[in-house]
Amino acid sequence: MLIAVLPGSFDPPTNGHLNLIYRASGIFDKLHLVIAVNQRKEYLFSGDERLGLMEDLVRDCDNVEVHLWDRLIVEFVREVGAKVIVRGVRALADFGYEFELAMTNQTLSPEIETIFMPTDPKYFVLRSSAIKEIAMLGGNITSMVPKIVADMLDKRLNGTN
Amino acid sequence: MLIAVLPGSFDPPTNGHLNLIYRASGIFDKLHLVIAVNQRKEYLFSGDERLGLMEDLVRDCDNVEVHLWDRLIVEFVREVGAKVIVRGVRALADFGYEFELAMTNQTLSPEIETIFMPTDPKYFVLRSSAIKEIAMLGGNITSMVPKIVADMLDKRLNGTN
Amino acid sequence: MLIAVLPGSFDPPTNGHLNLIYRASGIFDKLHLVIAVNQRKEYLFSGDERLGLMEDLVRDCDNVEVHLWDRLIVEFVREVGAKVIVRGVRALADFGYEFELAMTNQTLSPEIETIFMPTDPKYFVLRSSAIKEIAMLGGNITSMVPKIVADMLDKRLNGTN
Amino acid sequence: MLIAVLPGSFDPPTNGHLNLIYRASGIFDKLHLVIAVNQRKEYLFSGDERLGLMEDLVRDCDNVEVHLWDRLIVEFVREVGAKVIVRGVRALADFGYEFELAMTNQTLSPEIETIFMPTDPKYFVLRSSAIKEIAMLGGNITSMVPKIVADMLDKRLNGTN
Amino acid sequence: MLIAVLPGSFDPPTNGHLNLIYRASGIFDKLHLVIAVNQRKEYLFSGDERLGLMEDLVRDCDNVEVHLWDRLIVEFVREVGAKVIVRGVRALADFGYEFELAMTNQTLSPEIETIFMPTDPKYFVLRSSAIKEIAMLGGNITSMVPKIVADMLDKRLNGTN
Amino acid sequence: MLIAVLPGSFDPPTNGHLNLIYRASGIFDKLHLVIAVNQRKEYLFSGDERLGLMEDLVRDCDNVEVHLWDRLIVEFVREVGAKVIVRGVRALADFGYEFELAMTNQTLSPEIETIFMPTDPKYFVLRSSAIKEIAMLGGNITSMVPKIVADMLDKRLNGTN
Repeated sequence: MLIAVLPGSFDPPTNGHLNLIYRASGIFDKLHLVIAVNQRKEYLFSGDERLGLMEDLVRDCDNVEVHLWDRLIVEFVREVGAKVIVRGVRALADFGYEFELAMTNQTLSPEIETIFMPTDPKYFVLRSSAIKEIAMLGGNITSMVPKIVADMLDKRLNGTN
Repeated sequence: MLIAVLPGSFDPPTNGHLNLIYRASGIFDKLHLVIAVNQRKEYLFSGDERLGLMEDLVRDCDNVEVHLWDRLIVEFVREVGAKVIVRGVRALADFGYEFELAMTNQTLSPEIETIFMPTDPKYFVLRSSAIKEIAMLGGNITSMVPKIVADMLDKRLNGTN
Repeated sequence: MLIAVLPGSFDPPTNGHLNLIYRASGIFDKLHLVIAVNQRKEYLFSGDERLGLMEDLVRDCDNVEVHLWDRLIVEFVREVGAKVIVRGVRALADFGYEFELAMTNQTLSPEIETIFMPTDPKYFVLRSSAIKEIAMLGGNITSMVPKIVADMLDKRLNGTN
Repeated sequence: MLIAVLPGSFDPPTNGHLNLIYRASGIFDKLHLVIAVNQRKEYLFSGDERLGLMEDLVRDCDNVEVHLWDRLIVEFVREVGAKVIVRGVRALADFGYEFELAMTNQTLSPEIETIFMPTDPKYFVLRSSAIKEIAMLGGNITSMVPKIVADMLDKRLNGTN
Repeated sequence: MLIAVLPGSFDPPTNGHLNLIYRASGIFDKLHLVIAVNQRKEYLFSGDERLGLMEDLVRDCDNVEVHLWDRLIVEFVREVGAKVIVRGVRALADFGYEFELAMTNQTLSPEIETIFMPTDPKYFVLRSSAIKEIAMLGGNITSMVPKIVADMLDKRLNGTN
Repeated sequence: MLIAVLPGSFDPPTNGHLNLIYRASGIFDKLHLVIAVNQRKEYLFSGDERLGLMEDLVRDCDNVEVHLWDRLIVEFVREVGAKVIVRGVRALADFGYEFELAMTNQTLSPEIETIFMPTDPKYFVLRSSAIKEIAMLGGNITSMVPKIVADMLDKRLNGTN
């Protein structure tokens, strides 16, 4: 049984994340989504909020499980007995960073492999940080994130209820 | 059962190829190595020679099979019922090309995924073409390719027997 | 009146080329397509064939004119009194080359500006050379090029009539 | 009439910005410079100061107008009826980011085109942030920015006058 | 006598830094390590701590001297009569930034040359910031930094004594 | 005494090459220019012609010597007792290739260091191959190469005497 781990901040989850998750869940027997909680980073949504959103969004994927994690990713990978870490890469834009991260994780745990899945070009500009920026400036993000995320962003940023 | 296809020219196979093959064969249930035979390209070793070398080199990997192929890779993938194509990527150096190839294959066969495995930095300069160039100029390539490949290169380039 | 020149090999024209041409013709008052004829390069289609295809494809664009040219592009630009050269760029993949070409043209003719238009991600893998390769291997290219180009490729490569 | 919008922080304007502005104002019938005011960013010079500096610097360009703007750039583009956003790109160094920004703007407003103009190599290291850093450390920046900017930087950073 | 200057934050020094320093000290007659102290940046270790660590680490290199510096690097270079600034570059990952920095320094002091030494692939993921991140999350960094640095990181981050 | 080797095809030498040579000869005690002669490559100028041109061009540099070489560069480096290979790099455009070449040479001869000198932006589009292409199309290259090279190119390409 081939188990994979897909880590990220998912602050918030985007349509690009979902596309990657669906594709990865079609390849691996089991896919663990790991939502990073890093005390030195600021998030728009709390760990629990991101967990709730993600669990809603992958409800129909039987082989996907969602987790919060505040330690090294390689430790999570070992705990669930996974062999691979999956990362989406968008053209060259973030490959340099991803390659370095993969090498760092290999230094920490040589038995764990990182594999990259290319982002579908349709989604490759949907960076969470850009989407938040657009939402703050009042732009229309309904084509970029799932509806429950758009609603939650709207509430958070514009205080409407 | 997760079946993967790893295509390449392997003209000749290098230590970098073998590292990638061993790592990929540890992830997937079955790994098909596909040696490309393209009539418009010139190879130093014939398809049969490359097939022979590669079969020797992966003799101990029970879940690896080697094939010659002269059509589109996606057709091979469909024929063996595989889900993924595996490609090694070395830092940024060849990512642009690989990304484009992956997108092209996705256009041809949307149900097939390409995944990238980062090349171990130890091996990332071992491009087949550079190794042939060095061997032609009389350089020492014994740390770059398996012994049977070094011997065959020596015979081919220097006519010794 | 703002006149622009869009040079290329167009061997053959692709859907990506057409997307770029339509967008550029919507910006500039007049757009000259310049089909390069370089005696040291091998083309699949002759200059006249490429001219014929392109004229067919842009028949409905009133402000677009098609030309063959075998000298420096900057000389064409001067002859038609244009101010700018337009080039499509696909992510980072070909930006390095395009930037260098732009600087070279600026060295030759400081009064001419090169501007880049980003390729629509939907089209960014449609490189003419890859399409020819796929067609030669019998792949389906009908989503990549206009119908008259697909037919002509089929005739040329498979000798059917 | 072809109207273009050139957005930026211009904190402060550099000789590289001016080179780009002069070249763009020579291409388009009308050029709107849009000085971004983003409440979540820290600037060395206030919006009004940057507006004042820029208005001084382009006083002789009849077809250039300067504006402050704190909303999405695409909204400004629509308000003035422009067709294109102009961005300077320096070699590969910032192309990845610019490409992504262009795609994001296209998602928000498909009818607006972003075009890139390559930075003249003479100016391509004149990043506003580097110039401020150098000025803070007492370096000589008189070749990097217009005189009124150098004076204002000196006053701001060294409290003279 | 060829004098070179190797500047950096060294917060803290890594095995990658040491590899670069040993190699550079083998090339140049004299090598000055310059530890940047920038009041607008936050460091984990104070200037004096970094100075102390580095002096310990290069104690056996006769032609290496360590300095703290809070002004422009080019001023230090001039003060010690050096001709070159040495910088390590890791694949493409940081070349863009380094190139820009080199050009900026050349603008400030045309007589000073910056030269790049490629980072040994073995070390190229050992970025100080990544190592601190890993150490904070409890990861094992003993293969990434010299022992005195690992001990000091442990004390600083975990308050053990 | 610090001896450096600067290899290249120099087919033909450009103003960019000369700029690099002057700068490198100002750093090192002795600089060997090595003109590669590779039987599998086609050159416009023969090895002897390139040698003659280069010797003319560096006649005034007392510490520069010119050589033809048809074996591995690292062997030349060892024969003259040099420590370093110098290569010019133009922005990101050729860094990937240069990095790989440096690593390959380090694999062949760990005691030899490759250092990169950034190309002056003024010269970074002056690739020999582009200059030949322009000259063949009748473009004006007098600002790109020394006069004796321009004359020789003219004679070679246009058969004038």
